[in-house]
Amino acid sequence: MAPKQVNIAVIGTGGVGSCFLSQLAWLSKNLHSHSLNLCYIAMIDKALYHPDYAAIDIDTASPTLEAKGTSPPAIPTIVDYLAAAPHKVILVDNTSANSLAEAYPTFLRRGITIITPNKKAFSGSYELWQDIFNSAVTGGSFVYHESSVGAGMPIISTLHDLIQTGDVITRIEGVFSGTMSYLFNKFAPTSGSGGNWSDIVKEAKALGFTEPDPRDDLNGLDVARKLTILGRLAGLPIESPTSFPVESLIPEGLNGLSNGDEFLHSLSDYDNMMEEKRSAAEKAGKVVRFVGSMDMVSKEAKVGLEWFDPTHPIATLKGSDNIISFYTKRYGALPLTVRGAGAGGPVTAMGVTGDLLKIMKALCMALLYRWLLQSNITK
Amino acid sequence: MAPKQVNIAVIGTGGVGSCFLSQLAWLSKNLHSHSLNLCYIAMIDKALYHPDYAAIDIDTASPTLEAKGTSPPAIPTIVDYLAAAPHKVILVDNTSANSLAEAYPTFLRRGITIITPNKKAFSGSYELWQDIFNSAVTGGSFVYHESSVGAGMPIISTLHDLIQTGDVITRIEGVFSGTMSYLFNKFAPTSGSGGNWSDIVKEAKALGFTEPDPRDDLNGLDVARKLTILGRLAGLPIESPTSFPVESLIPEGLNGLSNGDEFLHSLSDYDNMMEEKRSAAEKAGKVVRFVGSMDMVSKEAKVGLEWFDPTHPIATLKGSDNIISFYTKRYGALPLTVRGAGAGGPVTAMGVTGDLLKIMKALCMALLYRWLLQSNITK
Repeated sequence: MAPKQVNIAVIGTGGVGSCFLSQLAWLSKNLHSHSLNLCYIAMIDKALYHPDYAAIDIDTASPTLEAKGTSPPAIPTIVDYLAAAPHKVILVDNTSANSLAEAYPTFLRRGITIITPNKKAFSGSYELWQDIFNSAVTGGSFVYHESSVGAGMPIISTLHDLIQTGDVITRIEGVFSGTMSYLFNKFAPTSGSGGNWSDIVKEAKALGFTEPDPRDDLNGLDVARKLTILGRLAGLPIESPTSFPVESLIPEGLNGLSNGDEFLHSLSDYDNMMEEKRSAAEKAGKVVRFVGSMDMVSKEAKVGLEWFDPTHPIATLKGSDNIISFYTKRYGALPLTVRGAGAGGPVTAMGVTGDLLKIMKALCMALLYRWLLQSNITK
Repeated sequence: MAPKQVNIAVIGTGGVGSCFLSQLAWLSKNLHSHSLNLCYIAMIDKALYHPDYAAIDIDTASPTLEAKGTSPPAIPTIVDYLAAAPHKVILVDNTSANSLAEAYPTFLRRGITIITPNKKAFSGSYELWQDIFNSAVTGGSFVYHESSVGAGMPIISTLHDLIQTGDVITRIEGVFSGTMSYLFNKFAPTSGSGGNWSDIVKEAKALGFTEPDPRDDLNGLDVARKLTILGRLAGLPIESPTSFPVESLIPEGLNGLSNGDEFLHSLSDYDNMMEEKRSAAEKAGKVVRFVGSMDMVSKEAKVGLEWFDPTHPIATLKGSDNIISFYTKRYGALPLTVRGAGAGGPVTAMGVTGDLLKIMKALCMALLYRWLLQSNITK
């Protein structure tokens, strides 16, 4: 069987994007039935592509882009270019850009399949969510976003499988933020105190475990976005990630400060407040954690501090691990739980590459099933 | 788009089989692009099928089989019947029969895709393993067996994704048996003693958590079989589930007893021996659990008792839950872990139905990508 070609366009060459390109190079050498043709690559201020869709060498794509890239075309031009390609095109969006996310419906309507770890599109307005999935149906294209929650861990695919085999989700609960996980695993270990809250936040920032301004983690919005995605997949028409209660850990007095350094400088004034929260849980024989939960029966979502028994899987979490539990009718009292790293370039890229593999496998199956297609499709 | 037809043959209507039929009925009503045609159904002593592959009503398949089934044909006859069907055929083996497992290569070589929770075929001789996967390549067919380890939990698919995206597995470790999980979670809680070993085994049997003869759980072979499957998928040519150290919890003096009741009657003579194992761990600040592990670096597998810190996820397991951890290069020191029910009709059937869904999705994608097939396949 001669190799079949699939075109691939990659936008974003940062932390996730560069890991994805390494994995793509590996995959490309290890795929048997298809060849992947990198026809477009772009970073924030440069793009590289050829009018005839000629292959860009994957191994050297990043340095070539740096050296020879030109100013990126406007999104409608990219859509036209990709939609006119002689083979099916997959767009991999490894950015966290809102502008690109908002254009997904346009790509999808033109038959371009999208794979992305970018949460923005799926946790924006519910109108955009509906537009994305309706556009995929119209365009005969697909949307894969495993890495938008829990990076490479099987979260989205597991939720899909539960629902599509007819199980009933009753509750989703978890620690969705690596930063929050690290902070509380340190600050409130299963016995005793881990030190001052502000010191632990500073340490996390020094280790690169927080956003440049730690308030972007502490406001709870990242957790709310992930919960919004899972809730919508489970069938709730959640209007936005701010349409349900989200507890912010930014003290009110520090909201207005102009940057993260000023914030960190003043955070120690609130150490007593956080210590009270920790010790109140301890006095009750519990530990405090920052979790997101969605009750599918009462249709209520919330994000914030909650107490857990010290032997609860959420309490015994380590490092910056995520943990996500699905309570369902079939699984009963004890949930189906997935735990592990939920951030970082290699594992986030793995979710993207895994999505690509699913498409390639389906194409491989399509080739093997061609007698079925030949006998049925043209009817 | 007109519905496309896929034939499905189901063997086994017991605990898993009956749950699968319910889920198949549900799925069949909720699939949009294809119709599932049940063309063959069989239990141990009865089979139902029509020479023209006419549909058997899924909703009433079990009672119809009971009422109208005839003696099942020999396996070669089933192969011939299914291979001659006018559309692609999927055989779902919901039995634990060795004879059927050994015939998988024959089915696969004739283009019949297999979905099964049956561990036997994948944990028998390495020769059979190779024959199965080579036959699938020859026949252009596929083998799906998610439920052979951890029932409906994403274990096999996660291991596939890790490997196929280029990660390196360094260690696989877990509690693979719901029975062993229940026994040790009760017997050796994270603090104190849970009671006499023999009482807990009797209680587990009364609750239906063991095989009719509990020695079939206590010999460790079920765990060894699951570990064999994961090790082989990860690339180790494991000869058989008895080709590495497997600790049996059947006291030597009780191996020869003629049945499970005699065994249970005499088991209390060994309570002191088990209590010593438990308290030795406790004195060291640990808890004892029955685990399977595979070191992919030293290529060593083993099954048996091991000690864990009381806060380790394996130590804090509850009920009869399974837990399986993948240590990999990308995930680093903390593994990717999946936890939940690893046995029971509904969740085992869910893994089977999930596999079926993957095939149906690929077919759906194949239809949408038909222009790709029309333009490329005939080249």
